[in-house]
Amino acid sequence: MVFMRAEIISIGTELLLGHIANTNAQYLSKELAECGIDVHLETTVGDNVVRIKDALKDALSRADFVITTGGLGPTIDDVTLEAISRATGKKLIFCKDILKKIGRHFKETNIKMPQENRRQAYLPEGATELPNSSGTAPGFIVNVDRKLIAALPGVPKEMRPMVEESLIPYLKKKSLCKAIIKTHTIRTSGVCESGINAKVKDLLRLKGAVTVGIYAHPLVVDLKITAKSENSKKASRLIEDVARIIRKRVGKHIFTEGDEEIEAVVARLLMKKHKTLAVAESATGGKISDKLTNIPGASKYFLFSAVTYSNQSKTDELLIPASLIKEKGAVSEEVAHLMATNVRLLTNTDYGLGITGIFGPTGATKTKPVGLVYIAVSDKKGTSVKQFNLLGDRKLIKTKATIAALDLLRRRLLE
Amino acid sequence: MVFMRAEIISIGTELLLGHIANTNAQYLSKELAECGIDVHLETTVGDNVVRIKDALKDALSRADFVITTGGLGPTIDDVTLEAISRATGKKLIFCKDILKKIGRHFKETNIKMPQENRRQAYLPEGATELPNSSGTAPGFIVNVDRKLIAALPGVPKEMRPMVEESLIPYLKKKSLCKAIIKTHTIRTSGVCESGINAKVKDLLRLKGAVTVGIYAHPLVVDLKITAKSENSKKASRLIEDVARIIRKRVGKHIFTEGDEEIEAVVARLLMKKHKTLAVAESATGGKISDKLTNIPGASKYFLFSAVTYSNQSKTDELLIPASLIKEKGAVSEEVAHLMATNVRLLTNTDYGLGITGIFGPTGATKTKPVGLVYIAVSDKKGTSVKQFNLLGDRKLIKTKATIAALDLLRRRLLE
Repeated sequence: MVFMRAEIISIGTELLLGHIANTNAQYLSKELAECGIDVHLETTVGDNVVRIKDALKDALSRADFVITTGGLGPTIDDVTLEAISRATGKKLIFCKDILKKIGRHFKETNIKMPQENRRQAYLPEGATELPNSSGTAPGFIVNVDRKLIAALPGVPKEMRPMVEESLIPYLKKKSLCKAIIKTHTIRTSGVCESGINAKVKDLLRLKGAVTVGIYAHPLVVDLKITAKSENSKKASRLIEDVARIIRKRVGKHIFTEGDEEIEAVVARLLMKKHKTLAVAESATGGKISDKLTNIPGASKYFLFSAVTYSNQSKTDELLIPASLIKEKGAVSEEVAHLMATNVRLLTNTDYGLGITGIFGPTGATKTKPVGLVYIAVSDKKGTSVKQFNLLGDRKLIKTKATIAALDLLRRRLLE
Repeated sequence: MVFMRAEIISIGTELLLGHIANTNAQYLSKELAECGIDVHLETTVGDNVVRIKDALKDALSRADFVITTGGLGPTIDDVTLEAISRATGKKLIFCKDILKKIGRHFKETNIKMPQENRRQAYLPEGATELPNSSGTAPGFIVNVDRKLIAALPGVPKEMRPMVEESLIPYLKKKSLCKAIIKTHTIRTSGVCESGINAKVKDLLRLKGAVTVGIYAHPLVVDLKITAKSENSKKASRLIEDVARIIRKRVGKHIFTEGDEEIEAVVARLLMKKHKTLAVAESATGGKISDKLTNIPGASKYFLFSAVTYSNQSKTDELLIPASLIKEKGAVSEEVAHLMATNVRLLTNTDYGLGITGIFGPTGATKTKPVGLVYIAVSDKKGTSVKQFNLLGDRKLIKTKATIAALDLLRRRLLE
């Protein structure tokens, strides 16, 4: 099986200034990967004819297939056509039919066609038009010394339909789509990146039809299996072979396979078991409740949360003795224990979650640093507390503590 | 004035597969533009040591300053260090101090340092470390034949603080920032985009040394003034001339000038006035509390929030009569009114905020559609309720309702 090597050139000074995100390159990479076309390099270049020409020449020296996006508009700074002409030596030919289509587009919108739009009616010698169903700039494909250049508009609303309606069908017709790429994500929590890494080190070295990548988020580590094959069934089989090994090694740290967030998993478990939850948050300030109520149908399991930020409210709302807070401190194993237990008992729910910590930048003491967090999970069998020492700024610690609490609850729900 | 020509190399196979968006390149482009450093080209390359080396060599042949992101992690597919060494001929030197820092990072989290993390303790000969305040991978800057390479981690949460805390200060110290672009943001809430647009239409047409852009977020509209000039003072003067006009026209809808979020403005007002707040949330599920407690020092004004998701908890925790909920519905002006009033009285705070709504996808009735929200603000002068009909999916409505509540509180605090 021979795979095409592709490169993407994104054109637009606004990209280099950071004014807009380059969503086109991501979209194209994904679409091409799914056709079995490997993107080896992506380049972003400004609206400058010489630089675009140089980027095209470099890309053609390395790849079989070069896709450009942007610079096909009617204005004077749209110079992709000119750059392709200079890079390939192909003349630009005026196309009456294309001008007619552009004229029709303006007629429909009751606007007189500006003279500038004539610039869009040119194509390089021998090019095949890729019609634009959502705008005036036509795209095209052109052969250059057994290599292929495809030029697409930069506006995503025009580019995407062109890819789906014209470019991919063209590549399929010419038998240039060689494979199917499938991916499968296994998501874990409760073990750091290097811990997961140590368990699957050998798999990360796989090169060939199936590969494994590791991606770290706050307190969540994803393993992504990617398989490339001539058909979907074989790709699935390749993935399953590796997934089985990962499941055996990583086991209970896996909270889902797919794209689900951990709060959705917790929600699903609570709903499946017809269990209810109440939460007592201090330092996380409502974040756990916010996450859990993002899930549609949350009212089935989520009954109440007390965000007891002040010590007084811990005593008034959760009946935590002021003397205990004074003796042990609001950030202590004992207070977390009572928060989870009491919120469960007071609201008559199946599960209670309690969390207290120091998230900074102030509030730390010699014995209690920023990042110290106690998380308690309570059900009728009892209450357990776990201590964490989390790194990061205030917001990052908040996010990590929230994930840690949801993961502890998930583990208890599976017991 | 001589400007540096910069190039960015983003490293990561997941980028070429389109699995994640390249937000790093956009962020860096923007940061560099604000320092007057022009980015001429951006390249994205996979985790392949030869291709990274080639991309580095190409970039060094064109630019004065090359910034890489990604590939500095502990795992076997992180090969940026090796590629920089091969591209520049610089040996990799083991740094005891860096290993110590990495070790400390693991000690804090009570995890034994995996052997792999030793790989992160190397720097190219003569490089200056850029410390990582949020993770283990150090970044660095190294001089190569009067050109500069900066290597940054790929995780945005580690990369961004490194840029702001170390890279930009380094460039400034070496007088490499030729700062000429200044921006100033005026943030509004409570008026829709087209409403703001109508007030500043003429300013949006400005072209030249100073321009104005309009950017819409959920229930927030930003006006961004950008001035380009040879010196900072002149740029500030250009901005101030336009800002004065905007202030006159948009007035009380402006909640801040700068980057501040609305919750930070509310927090600042509460702290300045030495006032306290308690919140009663239903449909927003803790989001308002989460936002308000993101602000350092929140414990000074934020005392308590009751996330009364179930009707029972509204009655038990906020003393809202079950009969009223039955008669008027949990989503009603009357219930919102009592939520704000009671949470304030029960916790003895200066302000109370109450919010109830239907956020979908289920729960709507003929008379109460998805997006119906009642928000109440209470202080000793009284309680007022405002009705909103917000559009969007569950999460978007949640975000909008949160902003609306914070804006109502902000306006009350200014009365």
